[in-house]
Amino acid sequence: MADDETPPATYDDLRAVYVNATLTRSPGTSHTQRLIDRSRHIMDAQGVQTEVIRAVDHDIAPGVWPDMTEHGWPSDEWPALYERILAADILVLAGPIWLGDNSSEMKKVIERLYASSGDLNDQGQWIYYGRVGGCLITGNEDGIKHCAMDVLYSLQHLGYVIPPQADAGWIGEAGPGPSYGDERDDGTRIGLDNDFTNRNTTFMAWNLMHTAKMLRDAGGFPSGGNRADSWREFTNAVDQPPLA
Amino acid sequence: MADDETPPATYDDLRAVYVNATLTRSPGTSHTQRLIDRSRHIMDAQGVQTEVIRAVDHDIAPGVWPDMTEHGWPSDEWPALYERILAADILVLAGPIWLGDNSSEMKKVIERLYASSGDLNDQGQWIYYGRVGGCLITGNEDGIKHCAMDVLYSLQHLGYVIPPQADAGWIGEAGPGPSYGDERDDGTRIGLDNDFTNRNTTFMAWNLMHTAKMLRDAGGFPSGGNRADSWREFTNAVDQPPLA
Amino acid sequence: MADDETPPATYDDLRAVYVNATLTRSPGTSHTQRLIDRSRHIMDAQGVQTEVIRAVDHDIAPGVWPDMTEHGWPSDEWPALYERILAADILVLAGPIWLGDNSSEMKKVIERLYASSGDLNDQGQWIYYGRVGGCLITGNEDGIKHCAMDVLYSLQHLGYVIPPQADAGWIGEAGPGPSYGDERDDGTRIGLDNDFTNRNTTFMAWNLMHTAKMLRDAGGFPSGGNRADSWREFTNAVDQPPLA
Amino acid sequence: MADDETPPATYDDLRAVYVNATLTRSPGTSHTQRLIDRSRHIMDAQGVQTEVIRAVDHDIAPGVWPDMTEHGWPSDEWPALYERILAADILVLAGPIWLGDNSSEMKKVIERLYASSGDLNDQGQWIYYGRVGGCLITGNEDGIKHCAMDVLYSLQHLGYVIPPQADAGWIGEAGPGPSYGDERDDGTRIGLDNDFTNRNTTFMAWNLMHTAKMLRDAGGFPSGGNRADSWREFTNAVDQPPLA
Repeated sequence: MADDETPPATYDDLRAVYVNATLTRSPGTSHTQRLIDRSRHIMDAQGVQTEVIRAVDHDIAPGVWPDMTEHGWPSDEWPALYERILAADILVLAGPIWLGDNSSEMKKVIERLYASSGDLNDQGQWIYYGRVGGCLITGNEDGIKHCAMDVLYSLQHLGYVIPPQADAGWIGEAGPGPSYGDERDDGTRIGLDNDFTNRNTTFMAWNLMHTAKMLRDAGGFPSGGNRADSWREFTNAVDQPPLA
Repeated sequence: MADDETPPATYDDLRAVYVNATLTRSPGTSHTQRLIDRSRHIMDAQGVQTEVIRAVDHDIAPGVWPDMTEHGWPSDEWPALYERILAADILVLAGPIWLGDNSSEMKKVIERLYASSGDLNDQGQWIYYGRVGGCLITGNEDGIKHCAMDVLYSLQHLGYVIPPQADAGWIGEAGPGPSYGDERDDGTRIGLDNDFTNRNTTFMAWNLMHTAKMLRDAGGFPSGGNRADSWREFTNAVDQPPLA
Repeated sequence: MADDETPPATYDDLRAVYVNATLTRSPGTSHTQRLIDRSRHIMDAQGVQTEVIRAVDHDIAPGVWPDMTEHGWPSDEWPALYERILAADILVLAGPIWLGDNSSEMKKVIERLYASSGDLNDQGQWIYYGRVGGCLITGNEDGIKHCAMDVLYSLQHLGYVIPPQADAGWIGEAGPGPSYGDERDDGTRIGLDNDFTNRNTTFMAWNLMHTAKMLRDAGGFPSGGNRADSWREFTNAVDQPPLA
Repeated sequence: MADDETPPATYDDLRAVYVNATLTRSPGTSHTQRLIDRSRHIMDAQGVQTEVIRAVDHDIAPGVWPDMTEHGWPSDEWPALYERILAADILVLAGPIWLGDNSSEMKKVIERLYASSGDLNDQGQWIYYGRVGGCLITGNEDGIKHCAMDVLYSLQHLGYVIPPQADAGWIGEAGPGPSYGDERDDGTRIGLDNDFTNRNTTFMAWNLMHTAKMLRDAGGFPSGGNRADSWREFTNAVDQPPLA
């Protein structure tokens, strides 16, 4: 139990997808996967149906169209992955830091998510409305916030709700060094006992569940003033405020 | 009315504060204020109590403590402003772009908000929990997303919920030129009829209201797994997942 | 002639490589290529040997090793491209803006450049020393500076010198719209006559040539205090300044 | 001596200004100052005339004009500080990280530098041409590269040359903790013996000196294609490349 109180709801009707944007294909070690596992473990314990997509294991074409086979690419696994992402209430984009920024796999995933951003849901809102998003970042040094800023910005722009403290990560001291979970000389694993990382990972997992539950209970994100077809009547109306 | 349907709730029990981080003191023209007014107008029409704090008009000391008069500064208006921000369900940080980034006034406001980030609310969560945040940016060219990324990241880190499409802004084509609402040769005002800016401003205002209402109805952000004093029992428990 | 004076040097001994990080494969239209052509045209006129690598046309494996075929990938064109980049005095990374950030192709190229960042040149400096770098960005709206910040930071971190005003770009007014060089209703091409874009493109091309020429004439970047094997004697010496 | 060889030049005709953008006024401890002292120590040893401006100790008005007393502010120390910055070959902007980003003092200094960016030097180039810039960042965790990206971008945009590896910094492992130079339980000072920080600090100081010397010897940055009054003849000429 996360608290001395009972959680305010049950979460076993929720689904979460983690996308791991590591550059290393399976079965190579992904340090980011270690942090994903911690986060997922928290959701699993509450009955959330979770799954992980390791992007680099899939043949995802670059581009900004929903299906790149319609734009000259011989193959593209994205459309199938997209269905899995769309079936989830919670999307966590996770990845490593390279030269202080997100990986190319992370950017490719965001580009492909963006490709469908003009589609609409049943309420006439953008397609991703009604879902919540978060971010996990690991590196050997420097850049969690820079990477998370970009990822969370992209998610809210697409229509995801970003709950409080929706990112977590681990980095070491400035300079090259071990990555998350690597063995130290004394046999312990660096980062795994980092209180700050563990706290943020916990906060994030729970805040994603809380928010997803609120949206699920509300039947999606409330409709009004946020539909592609009907907003114009409002702000383009004649009674604009006088100009400052 | 924003839609052809009735909004799903009433919003007249909500309060919103806009902080204008322009570098220009009153009564000088702030182009950002023009966009704030548009956003505020939408909330006002729904009965939300709104107010604007123009940061540069106030004597806000730099620093990362709640009251800088306790740290050597002769005066500091921040503590009074902070009370107004804390009384609001909705916080919108708005500002100009200078050399592609947020203004120094914006950074000062964020630093001062950060100063209280370790305080707790009645539920034992960080103090800003239960509120929602957004961002408005104007410039004559380039940088809305860069500025908004940083502002929205800071707000979610502090405990604010970020609703879908929580930023809006206006910029012109690359290069120097008129700012938002400036008069063109033909007497019209640039930017005011920009469909994209108006749509995002509408979406943002409504999504802030919708989300604030959900949190208000829920009695704050749900508690569980997100309290400073009790999260450790959970993720530091012995049954961690096996290491990838 | 760029000026009313003769250029202070000749540049026909220089080589420049432009990497186009568009997501669109040949022969599809790349708006970024249009701006590359403008920049290249300036260098060509001075006798610089220029070439363009369109990254997405090549089979570049993701990863942070010099040759990914040694790390499980069936093929990798990067090693051959790397030789061309290393043969050039000037490297210009160019690309589009997607959701306010650099393309995944741009990130992949930077990751692969980073893979060799620990190699040394004949002077014992990092391998990229003695070269100069710049950046070109196009989009239909918002993000030149954000993208260029990341690209130029990466280049200087690798060892490239960044001359004054080493980036140029074009974006339109906030919101969807035509991209660089697209035809307007009146038959003209948007952006091509943008004074700011043209000025920055000119400044950048010339400043890259000037700086590359200085380094060429100096026989590379000066050696001293910047070699991997010998810097320690200096800052770790006992006579550190007293602690503030 | 930094190397086993003699430096390729003497540097005692150079001047360097460090701006410390800490939020803490003198005589309070600035961790950033500790890193500045290390860098300055290297330059001092070569005879460079160095000085430090601690921005927050000065009454610098916010704004984007050269002298804010002409725009309604009762006082403004910036014009005097600007003269000192303009007298220097080398400018190093140094500061702390707050919530992952640069301090408000850093942004204020950049805004004020920007205010004069349209002035010209004797050659008709922008006023800052002929100088070199660098960046030092400290924090207790996360953000060196993010902050440096913005600072170095601003400096090159203003006209400064950015030499290779023009930034250095120190941060600790993810989470709250000691700042640069703070005493550990065993009486040693954290960060001072960080090899990566020391190496980058050394590289940066020397690369700034090398580059400043090259520009000094060249009589400034070469002129041609980079003057405000004469560039148009070139890129707006009729013989543009055919459109891709």
